[in-house]
Amino acid sequence: MLEEKKNKLEAIRHSLSHLMSMAIQELYPQVGLGVGPAIENGFYQDYDLPEAIGLEILPKLEKRMKELIRKNIKFEQHNVDFKQAYKFYQHDLYKTALIDDLKSVGEKSVSFYKSGEFDNLCAGSHVKSSGQIQSDSWKLEKLAGAYWRGDEKNKMLTRIYGLAFATKQELDNYLKMMEEAEKRDHRKLGKELDFFHIDEIVGSGLPLWHPKGAILWRIIEDFWYKEHLKNEYQLVRTPHIGNKILWETSGHWGFYNESMYPPLEIGQTLKENQNKEKTKNSEQFLLKPMNCPFHVQIFKNKPYSYRELPLRWAECGTVYRYEKKGELSGLIRVRGFTQDDAHIICRADQVENELKKVIDFILFIYKSFGFEIESVNVYLSIRDQELKKYAGTNQGWEFTEKVLERVALEKGLNIKKDVGGAVFYGPKLDFKVKDAIGREWQCSTLQFDFNLPERFDMTFVNEKAEKERPYMLHRALFGSFERFIGVLIEHYAGALPVWLSPVQVKIVSVGAAHAEFCQKLADEFKQNDIRVEVDESDETVGNKIRKAVAEKVPYMLVVGDRETASDKLAVRDRGEKQTREIDKERFIKEVKEKIKNRK
Amino acid sequence: MLEEKKNKLEAIRHSLSHLMSMAIQELYPQVGLGVGPAIENGFYQDYDLPEAIGLEILPKLEKRMKELIRKNIKFEQHNVDFKQAYKFYQHDLYKTALIDDLKSVGEKSVSFYKSGEFDNLCAGSHVKSSGQIQSDSWKLEKLAGAYWRGDEKNKMLTRIYGLAFATKQELDNYLKMMEEAEKRDHRKLGKELDFFHIDEIVGSGLPLWHPKGAILWRIIEDFWYKEHLKNEYQLVRTPHIGNKILWETSGHWGFYNESMYPPLEIGQTLKENQNKEKTKNSEQFLLKPMNCPFHVQIFKNKPYSYRELPLRWAECGTVYRYEKKGELSGLIRVRGFTQDDAHIICRADQVENELKKVIDFILFIYKSFGFEIESVNVYLSIRDQELKKYAGTNQGWEFTEKVLERVALEKGLNIKKDVGGAVFYGPKLDFKVKDAIGREWQCSTLQFDFNLPERFDMTFVNEKAEKERPYMLHRALFGSFERFIGVLIEHYAGALPVWLSPVQVKIVSVGAAHAEFCQKLADEFKQNDIRVEVDESDETVGNKIRKAVAEKVPYMLVVGDRETASDKLAVRDRGEKQTREIDKERFIKEVKEKIKNRK
Repeated sequence: MLEEKKNKLEAIRHSLSHLMSMAIQELYPQVGLGVGPAIENGFYQDYDLPEAIGLEILPKLEKRMKELIRKNIKFEQHNVDFKQAYKFYQHDLYKTALIDDLKSVGEKSVSFYKSGEFDNLCAGSHVKSSGQIQSDSWKLEKLAGAYWRGDEKNKMLTRIYGLAFATKQELDNYLKMMEEAEKRDHRKLGKELDFFHIDEIVGSGLPLWHPKGAILWRIIEDFWYKEHLKNEYQLVRTPHIGNKILWETSGHWGFYNESMYPPLEIGQTLKENQNKEKTKNSEQFLLKPMNCPFHVQIFKNKPYSYRELPLRWAECGTVYRYEKKGELSGLIRVRGFTQDDAHIICRADQVENELKKVIDFILFIYKSFGFEIESVNVYLSIRDQELKKYAGTNQGWEFTEKVLERVALEKGLNIKKDVGGAVFYGPKLDFKVKDAIGREWQCSTLQFDFNLPERFDMTFVNEKAEKERPYMLHRALFGSFERFIGVLIEHYAGALPVWLSPVQVKIVSVGAAHAEFCQKLADEFKQNDIRVEVDESDETVGNKIRKAVAEKVPYMLVVGDRETASDKLAVRDRGEKQTREIDKERFIKEVKEKIKNRK
Repeated sequence: MLEEKKNKLEAIRHSLSHLMSMAIQELYPQVGLGVGPAIENGFYQDYDLPEAIGLEILPKLEKRMKELIRKNIKFEQHNVDFKQAYKFYQHDLYKTALIDDLKSVGEKSVSFYKSGEFDNLCAGSHVKSSGQIQSDSWKLEKLAGAYWRGDEKNKMLTRIYGLAFATKQELDNYLKMMEEAEKRDHRKLGKELDFFHIDEIVGSGLPLWHPKGAILWRIIEDFWYKEHLKNEYQLVRTPHIGNKILWETSGHWGFYNESMYPPLEIGQTLKENQNKEKTKNSEQFLLKPMNCPFHVQIFKNKPYSYRELPLRWAECGTVYRYEKKGELSGLIRVRGFTQDDAHIICRADQVENELKKVIDFILFIYKSFGFEIESVNVYLSIRDQELKKYAGTNQGWEFTEKVLERVALEKGLNIKKDVGGAVFYGPKLDFKVKDAIGREWQCSTLQFDFNLPERFDMTFVNEKAEKERPYMLHRALFGSFERFIGVLIEHYAGALPVWLSPVQVKIVSVGAAHAEFCQKLADEFKQNDIRVEVDESDETVGNKIRKAVAEKVPYMLVVGDRETASDKLAVRDRGEKQTREIDKERFIKEVKEKIKNRK
């Protein structure tokens, strides 16, 4: 039933993209047609247009599409042989290329859908007739540029996006959710709260952290380190570059080199490098795309006994991966990010216990940052046995997949299986938290690895004094600091809990006469490890208050004549318009209590 | 007088290198002669020998050199014209190349020194006769490989090093000091204490920090951050790569590109990169050799008012600089290091106060880590007006050099002037600490910059609502974490103060029966934030104690029947052979007191 509903919605979305093409073809008869699929929440279609278009075209297209819907136009499939198909599209190089593709994979003929006068190369599916589409359940959303076939070297086409649902109610819900999401957008809030910026000159996908963002990072990092030490992890620390051999050995180079930065030739002069000479002493280094091989090399530096296992080695390691510019997004999709990484090297008989401990640790972390742990969804990614992109033996895969599933079930996690989602070296659990408006964010990952120990020939000395191969778990709790901070900003709409707020108390002086009192008060807070900022600028009190509100500071204290003459503080809590009176000591205790309890 | 003594010593050292060549020429008449200067503590000479030689040759050479000294051979200078010189060295391509050099700079003839049968292209100076050399004030030290002209592409010659002083006493003092230094060698201790290793596969000059080294780093970093916040710095955080334009703008690329890694082409496919194609979307990025341009870009992200200055922005930023393999050394000379960097952006009227604050901060840091601040030498590096390697106006240089010197004098620093040592963008103060055996180590640097603000067009809005150019101070207190930790290890010969020790208390169980008691004791220490490790392995107590001694743990507790039955602890302090009895509570208090007071 659900499946059926989904298929129907997909047919509606796809049909709307055809109706949109019909409308645009009326305006631009020579328009070139790129791809136009149904997508999550709607559809899009790429067009090669003879001129640039603006948003003002959308209402025109919508109007025409609604007319077409009212005409109840039939969608009819028919097969066309290649000769005819090529002829039909002789002026459209995009469609011609798509036909080439179909021919090259051995198709005998191609499928077209005809709706009214409009005939279109298309595999479907579609509604039977346009009358099945509710006119108020969809709208055209936005314009974007999109390279033909997603390749930056090709021509940029105009993509028109539409939103489409089964009912108006669903569309309205979606629009409301989007509006809410826009308010929470960490890119917008990150700028308003002065947390970070991405600099055009420095480079795309490489955030620069301003003082308020950097202190937030440090608070989180400090918490992370302390909890890791409590949980009997040890710290390690490794460089950001290393010999390419490491990732050739690990297999990452072979499997993922397209998302790595090109090798650095080291040991050459600049001139030799510019001339692209190969010199005898030159070595190829990579910006590290992951930390594992370094941790492995630390392990291999001396022999370990079975008694010393498990080793739990943690590092907040900044890694660099190449992402296409168009795929970058704020802190969520970047080109350099700091994994809160750890590798657990253990014996077979320790694997289950270690996996359970990591799961507990992940849930503890979510709780600490104010996420509901009951709603966390966990994706168990296993092999797709049809695909050949995995390393290691069948036996190894069967064992690790089974253990991982059993442990996840025993821990009562909400598991969803993702067949084919495994990493090349083993199966994994990906944890997705739900934020305050119900969106899922991928954060933690727990990966079971039986391949790297093999590839790097890692061994420990077992009870029989023989060499034995350990297992390795890769795990990150936040995923990355950048992403996690982005998620926190969106979850809290920037109004971070007291313990995480860069400025916990903002003191606003009414006039110059109160500045000294404010500074003394601030010193007292500082001595109590409370982060405080004084605004004693010569702006109006109203302006200073508005600024503090915009900064989403948890507590604001306005200090005028009355306050300097009294022992009581006038506290304005975030989100409140009224102030409350409270003893200074009681207030300090209240704030410290919140910090301690991570509220 | 001092100068005269220095010149005499240099003549002795240089003459010994000739005597060594005489001795080696007797063994290898066809030997090629590279360079052979007097150096600090002695001399060396490079030889192109027909066979590999071992250390066993040194006593033979020494014996022959002593015979030559006893013969009181005269050193006599004479001039030779180029034709004769070339003829004399027709079989020696190294000397021939050196003669070429002299000819190319326009010399009319060349200087030779003749000692006995040995005649040698040499500008001097030398002793009058070998009898002026005390036979027991020198010795041959070691062999090394050295590329001709220091270029890895040339042939590797054999370099023989000798030590030479004016008296036997001075030689003995030096040898004793070297012996002491060898015991303190951080490369050796770093391995023994399991702090770090430099991995052949990962790459030269790129240390990997093991758990004990990484926790030491974290302790230092935590202290550093807290003190910076106390001193009203703010944190920032920036990536490890950035567009090359940044360093072209700053001038670093122009002045220092030989010590940077080659640019990374970003936005290309791997194949395009391998084929060295230039693609339209590709940009050149650099591994950051310094943090400044990033901090500048944060400053430029929004307008600042004069009221908001000074800005003090701190970052422990890992930078990468290319050093030749032969110049790398443990943690002291590396290819990637973490600067404890900060940039202070301030108005002209704030410069003096900020400089003074930084000087106070530097001295506080040295004191905190147990260095004597009275013996710190400070090198004031200014322009050499003859050289052209500086940016900016004369006026700017004069102002900044004057202010820096005045502030340093007012602060009562031991200043030594280094004419020509300035950075291209401004003058600087370099601070050198003396370690426990009197060696000087360069750590802190305080650099005065009036050029980068110009090059990046940095401005703030002054009281008249006009744009004004700020000044910028660059400063690092440790210099780099790697180097500073290296210096700490050498200073303390690995026996770090309690607050810095990775393991503060080591508990040794006598037998299996005491293991549980040990673990309970350890938990109690942990709850008091004391770093503790339990050795409950089944080795002998003697072995376990020897191991703890080798680990240089400040406190060792041996737990047997007597201790489990009592409330008292048997504590063995580092360096002591006897244990002392102490109440557990008092002991915990003692350790916590040390940690708090950074002892």
